[in-house]
Amino acid sequence: MEIYPDIPLQQIDAVLEKSQQAFDTYRQVSLLKRAELLRAIASELEEIGDAWIQVAHQETNLPEARLRNERARTIYQLESYGQACAEGDWMRISIDTAFPNRNPPRPDLRKMMIPLGPVVVFGASNFPYAYSTAGGDTASALAAGCSVIVKAHPAHPETSAMATAAIRRALEKCGLPIDTFQHVYGASNEVGKALVQHRNTSAVGFTGSFNGGKQLFDWANQRPHPIPVFAEMGSVNPIFLLPEQMGLEAESLAEKIAGSVILGVGQFCTNPGLLFAVEGDSLLHFKNKLKALLQSVAPAPMLHTGIKDNYQSSSTEWRAKAGVSTLVASVEQPDLCVTPQLTETSLNRFIQDSSLHQEVFGPATLLVVCPTLSDLLVAAAHIEGQLTCSVFGTPAELSAQSGLLQILQTRCGRLNFNMVPTGVEVVQSMQHGGPFPATTDPRFTAVGSDAILRFVRPISYQNCPDDLLPDELKSANPLQIWRKIDGAWSNDSVR
Amino acid sequence: MEIYPDIPLQQIDAVLEKSQQAFDTYRQVSLLKRAELLRAIASELEEIGDAWIQVAHQETNLPEARLRNERARTIYQLESYGQACAEGDWMRISIDTAFPNRNPPRPDLRKMMIPLGPVVVFGASNFPYAYSTAGGDTASALAAGCSVIVKAHPAHPETSAMATAAIRRALEKCGLPIDTFQHVYGASNEVGKALVQHRNTSAVGFTGSFNGGKQLFDWANQRPHPIPVFAEMGSVNPIFLLPEQMGLEAESLAEKIAGSVILGVGQFCTNPGLLFAVEGDSLLHFKNKLKALLQSVAPAPMLHTGIKDNYQSSSTEWRAKAGVSTLVASVEQPDLCVTPQLTETSLNRFIQDSSLHQEVFGPATLLVVCPTLSDLLVAAAHIEGQLTCSVFGTPAELSAQSGLLQILQTRCGRLNFNMVPTGVEVVQSMQHGGPFPATTDPRFTAVGSDAILRFVRPISYQNCPDDLLPDELKSANPLQIWRKIDGAWSNDSVR
Repeated sequence: MEIYPDIPLQQIDAVLEKSQQAFDTYRQVSLLKRAELLRAIASELEEIGDAWIQVAHQETNLPEARLRNERARTIYQLESYGQACAEGDWMRISIDTAFPNRNPPRPDLRKMMIPLGPVVVFGASNFPYAYSTAGGDTASALAAGCSVIVKAHPAHPETSAMATAAIRRALEKCGLPIDTFQHVYGASNEVGKALVQHRNTSAVGFTGSFNGGKQLFDWANQRPHPIPVFAEMGSVNPIFLLPEQMGLEAESLAEKIAGSVILGVGQFCTNPGLLFAVEGDSLLHFKNKLKALLQSVAPAPMLHTGIKDNYQSSSTEWRAKAGVSTLVASVEQPDLCVTPQLTETSLNRFIQDSSLHQEVFGPATLLVVCPTLSDLLVAAAHIEGQLTCSVFGTPAELSAQSGLLQILQTRCGRLNFNMVPTGVEVVQSMQHGGPFPATTDPRFTAVGSDAILRFVRPISYQNCPDDLLPDELKSANPLQIWRKIDGAWSNDSVR
Repeated sequence: MEIYPDIPLQQIDAVLEKSQQAFDTYRQVSLLKRAELLRAIASELEEIGDAWIQVAHQETNLPEARLRNERARTIYQLESYGQACAEGDWMRISIDTAFPNRNPPRPDLRKMMIPLGPVVVFGASNFPYAYSTAGGDTASALAAGCSVIVKAHPAHPETSAMATAAIRRALEKCGLPIDTFQHVYGASNEVGKALVQHRNTSAVGFTGSFNGGKQLFDWANQRPHPIPVFAEMGSVNPIFLLPEQMGLEAESLAEKIAGSVILGVGQFCTNPGLLFAVEGDSLLHFKNKLKALLQSVAPAPMLHTGIKDNYQSSSTEWRAKAGVSTLVASVEQPDLCVTPQLTETSLNRFIQDSSLHQEVFGPATLLVVCPTLSDLLVAAAHIEGQLTCSVFGTPAELSAQSGLLQILQTRCGRLNFNMVPTGVEVVQSMQHGGPFPATTDPRFTAVGSDAILRFVRPISYQNCPDDLLPDELKSANPLQIWRKIDGAWSNDSVR
């Protein structure tokens, strides 16, 4: 493999200066042009063909089938965020027309979203396409009208370089400033810090570990001018298993959950690392089935040595924790391979030992056994902020558990009913985010076209002559955007 | 005047515990109930009658007529945010229905906004009604479904106590937990820090100085679980005067600007503290008129000793700055009274001395003389983040100055055309916020019903049985909210 040296720190200023210059042009292009760019990127990525799959497979060990799916998702994201961008609905346009006869006269006010400025993106290792170089953060920042600098993930540098070349070809074909998108290498903390703290940087997107995300957040807030950081960090995605449902389908529940725990060798941000269930015969049945399923899983390779080593040491450590019993132990494997682990503890022990609330990144889950149904509420009250929480129950017992559902709503960004948390739909109604420590800002999503909102802010034009207004706000509504005019939604012109 | 001792630090935990408990009930009440509460507060405030005006006048020295206007604004805010709350449009509801036949099946996903939790509000001294105890932050947090703790501004403690009593009477009449709103005194930093850093506090609203707002922001980010701070801080609200317009109406421009500089004894956050104009005869004409107008202003009292002393020392300091000439000097006055000040400097000096970019809180403004029209762009590129920027120009010269307008858009939350910045309309299209250091979060507004969005976050329900969904998301749309269903806006039910 080629070597990708870190960018020298003294070159970062030039990168951000070029990004600012590109931004000053790019932020003025129309919504349709931005959508054209996103489609052009999608098509350039498709053009790379199997070469991209092969390189990504070599760099990440992800199976080809998974990579093909992820590539399709990446292309869909670019296309769907481009379409959302062009429709303009995300701009949340509001127009309040003048009342010249009021005393004092009320001025005409029109509000829309404008881009923040250059955005620095730190991609994820576990999604080398969909949440890396040409992934969701880049797509939504470009849709917002921002320029982008990606710091390549060191675990897939060549995959990242190929995406970069495609994006820059698309910029060129669209006649846009090529430095609207730039790409740097930097495995060191210093590069990250310099990027986040450069005066031109206006926002940061990150997907990765708690320590990494929190560090970026702190650097950003220590700037003379603080900037927002959208860091998606750890999440254990608890699943609550209600007893009636458990009684009805202990085996099939075990199958669903085993499938979710081992999906992608447990390397998804929505991987279920915690299961809460109520003591009883059905639980025993469920446990035996889950145990059998996880024991039979063939060893599979993780993304890179760092992740594998971390999984091995964490899972070993967990087996040694007081009050934790091991149902399935992860077994040391050659190369990057690992096997799943299933541990069990009591609710009391879980409450006492906060280390049991932490994420083990990989195919491991902890079953917390609760003595009674009402203890599930106690459990829920003790969990930290999560991307997702899930509940399995019959209609009747879900209705009876409104107290549990109320607590879970305060703990997560997405609440699933009778579904495992893995599988994140790319639709506007998706909230992929959640209370700290799942993310640094639960008010925004990293998946779905609302992700664009992370990189914009509102501006009002007061008493602006119509010909000087951006097209989005002109009375004639040339872009045919849905706008709220004097309190009523309309895609018509201002009368 | 009665004495209002600081709350003992050891009592703050009990306040936040009560707030959390009240929140756990209040967050579950319907949008209509929240709207009813806001209307009830408005009506209780009206009931206080002139007693409230008299106390506020004694505490703040604001004239009665101004206080009556501000009271009307406060009541209007409560009513209009209540109406917006009930309409539910701010919840940005999105529904993507299931595709059971897709492989894998697409689940039903529905997204809405839920409240963050207890909100701590630090009111403004310059708006004892509209941006204090029962002001915009409290109204929008209650509309969001949050409980509120106000730390009374020490400059109007009794005015604050009267508002508190009215709010709590309204809560009682509506049958809501009385601790949904609480009120504490605390002139010390320790009280502020303890409130911001309490584990139950979920967001902070603040209007005041840069140092105050930045301190709260830092405390909030240093928490184990950081929380958002919406601090509206300093702004000098630059006005750019284009030469043709200046040639047409030098005198009337001087009148408008003088009126804006002295409005409310210069104690508005949108007070214009910076004027940029191009050298020439018309400017001389304008300057002489502005000078004459400001010299003739009668002394008027500021809000309190701290603000007056600060104005006197800052304005004296400014007159002594290198390269600054004094056109009208503020004259030492008895009691809390002050007079306006007008100073002048060159663009070069302005660029060299960053202290000239700072706000002088009060009726003072600095005229920066630019040698040529194109120097206005240089000036614009050197200003910091602002709540507002304003431009006065003829249609022709505004059209010719698109470069200037482009820069100004990156510097402010509201861009005014041929209007002074003072006068902040309470409408949805208002953006009252702006890039740092004007606020700590330019992505949100402190005025207009979108202010509600500061105190909420999205949550998605995946595959949730219809009867367990909140009313806002139920297929039948019982609240008749406008929702985006499978990409199209509708106030109908889900088919």
